[in-house]
Parts: sequence; C-alpha cells; structure tokens
Amino acid sequence: MSGKLNDEALDLIFREARTHNAWQDKPVTDEQLKEIYDLFKWGPTSANMSPARIVFVKSDEEKERLLPALMEGNREKTRQAPATAIIGHDVKFYERLPELFPHAPDAKTWFNWSDEWAEMNAFRNGSLQGAYFMIAARALGLDCGPMSGFDMDAVNELYFKGTDVKVNFICNIGYGDPAGLFERSPRLPFDDACKIV
Amino acid sequence: MSGKLNDEALDLIFREARTHNAWQDKPVTDEQLKEIYDLFKWGPTSANMSPARIVFVKSDEEKERLLPALMEGNREKTRQAPATAIIGHDVKFYERLPELFPHAPDAKTWFNWSDEWAEMNAFRNGSLQGAYFMIAARALGLDCGPMSGFDMDAVNELYFKGTDVKVNFICNIGYGDPAGLFERSPRLPFDDACKIV
Repeated sequence: MSGKLNDEALDLIFREARTHNAWQDKPVTDEQLKEIYDLFKWGPTSANMSPARIVFVKSDEEKERLLPALMEGNREKTRQAPATAIIGHDVKFYERLPELFPHAPDAKTWFNWSDEWAEMNAFRNGSLQGAYFMIAARALGLDCGPMSGFDMDAVNELYFKGTDVKVNFICNIGYGDPAGLFERSPRLPFDDACKIV
Repeated sequence: MSGKLNDEALDLIFREARTHNAWQDKPVTDEQLKEIYDLFKWGPTSANMSPARIVFVKSDEEKERLLPALMEGNREKTRQAPATAIIGHDVKFYERLPELFPHAPDAKTWFNWSDEWAEMNAFRNGSLQGAYFMIAARALGLDCGPMSGFDMDAVNELYFKGTDVKVNFICNIGYGDPAGLFERSPRLPFDDACKIV
C-alpha cells in the first residue's frame, strides 16, 4: 500500500464528521450494515481476537423495548434513527482464537487464565473495534451518534442475557439532520495531549 | 458531508492495511506526528472527554529505556521502528471538561464521583482514540504495528510516573517492510459477530 487519503476523504471520516442527534427519514439497509461489518472487521485487534459483538436494532418493536433503558435525553433521537448498534464484547473471545489466530495454536492460554485479564482485553479491543465501526460507517457515507448514557445492566439483560457478551456503548447510525448538531467542542492542543521524546 | 470513500481509500485504511513487524529505514517526522494528532483528535469521545495521552518515543536513548519493558518478541521490531507511540489515558480527564465540553458546565460531575467509573470511561474512550490514531496514521500513508505485549507497570513507571495517566497499548509507526508480514488471519463471518433485530 502507498498513498494518502485526499482532503475530501479526511474531512468525511475525521475533520467534518460530527456526532448526530437528529436523523433524516431515510432507511439504512441490512446490506449497508453488512458492508460496515465487512470493512471494520479488518481493523487490528490483539491476537486478532475480534471480540466485538453487535446487535443492530431496526424494528419499531425492538426500538420500543430498548428505549426505556436509555437516559431520557437519548430516547427520542434513538427512536428517530434508522438503526441503533448495540456494541458489546465477548469476554470469552478466546474460545474463537484457534480459528482467528491459527498461527499460534496456544493463543487461547494467553487470555483464559484470568477472568479479569480476559475482560480487560475484551474491553480494550472491543472499544478499538467500536471506533473502527464508526469510521467505517462514515467512510460509507453514513453518520454516527454514539452514546454512553444508558443502563448497562438493563441493556445486557435485553440483548445479551445467557451469553458471555457485555455491552460497551451504543451508536445510532443513519443520515444525520444537521439541524440537530451542537456547536463543535474544542480539542486539546498537541502539547497538552502528546509529547515527543 | 456526503459521499463515500473510494475503493483505494477503503483499501488503504481497512482492507489492505496490515499490522507491521518490520520497518523500512525511513524516518517519521515530528510534523507527521502532529498531523496524525490533528486528524485523530476529531474522532468522537463521550462528552468530548478526549482522555488519550501519547508519548512518541523516537530517540535512540529513549528506545533503549523502553525496550526492556516489552516482551522479548516485541523488542527488535520496536528498536527498528522510526517512532513508537505509547498510548495512555488520563483517569482524571474530567478536570479538562470545563474547556472540552463548554455547553454543559457540570459535565465534570458526571464522572468524578467514582474513581472506578472515571477509569472505565477513560479506558473506553482512550481506546476509541487509540483506534482513531491508527486509522489516522494509515490515512496519512503510514503503517502501524500495535502491541499489548509489555509490562504495564514498568511502562507507567517510565513514562507516566507522578501523573494521572495509565498506559493502554503501544503502537509502532513508520513505513512497514512487507517482508515482515504474517499471513493474514481470518475474520468472523457477519452472523457470528452481528445480529439484526
């Protein structure tokens, strides 16, 4: 690989992309959700563990089940959004490592010796994948509205009961309505966040 | 914003991008590190908390200090890499929220009531930023080599002593030498990782 993205592409995925709070009445197809997955799955994770698990909530019935678990300020925009991704991670991701990391047959034992260690790794790498997910959605022309304001236990109960998956965050996707944007918040200057030694 | 990235761009940041283990003898300038920051800083974080803090290790002297803290298999490639990013997160990120999230003057109180809660939020959002960092580096034509195989306590002691920052992961950056690539590992099929309801 060589080359760089051009300015328009950098604007689309980073510089002009915004967190959306209002949504146009325009559907997101199942095919688009699969396209997002087929991109973001390539983002790197430790030992290729790929712990992210996503439930895409699209139907009105499932939306109504989800909404009470959200903070009130997140409900109306989530009702409006054509799709809502519930992004979790499998804390027993290591069971899939024999397939996912075939060149190290013992990779499972790097993680399954401690629940706490496994969960930390699932959380870190599932969060990386959550970010890849958002960048992939934007790269495909969709907008995102990520949220942490919800009852984690209630969402786990609704969507991950009886599994080893725990919710991480939630992200509306669709075509944003710019009328719902907040003013853009500032970022830290380089020297406050980074150092070169 | 409208539009989508073209295939070449999607290949560059996702489909053809690989985790590199060997590096060309070609420097990464401080200016490039600042360009990466000026892109990835725009990625969304909860309440714009922006908890990621990065130390870029470039000098031979600092590299030699860092190497003993890495797992042996990660040392030679890190010595070779023109820059090594130590990506941490500030667990007291909330002290900067009055600047970073000006439209909610009480945002600090959403997080500072519990160390455990604050740290979970720093870890999640710092990890999101770590992913934005890697995508931004790739978008600017650089390659990444992320690693979790190191002694976290030792790295904290070396680079974040006396601060509220904790290391998350480490990422070599530069121009990869394809000779050092492993065979690409498979990803989970959509239906194993996702569900649409």
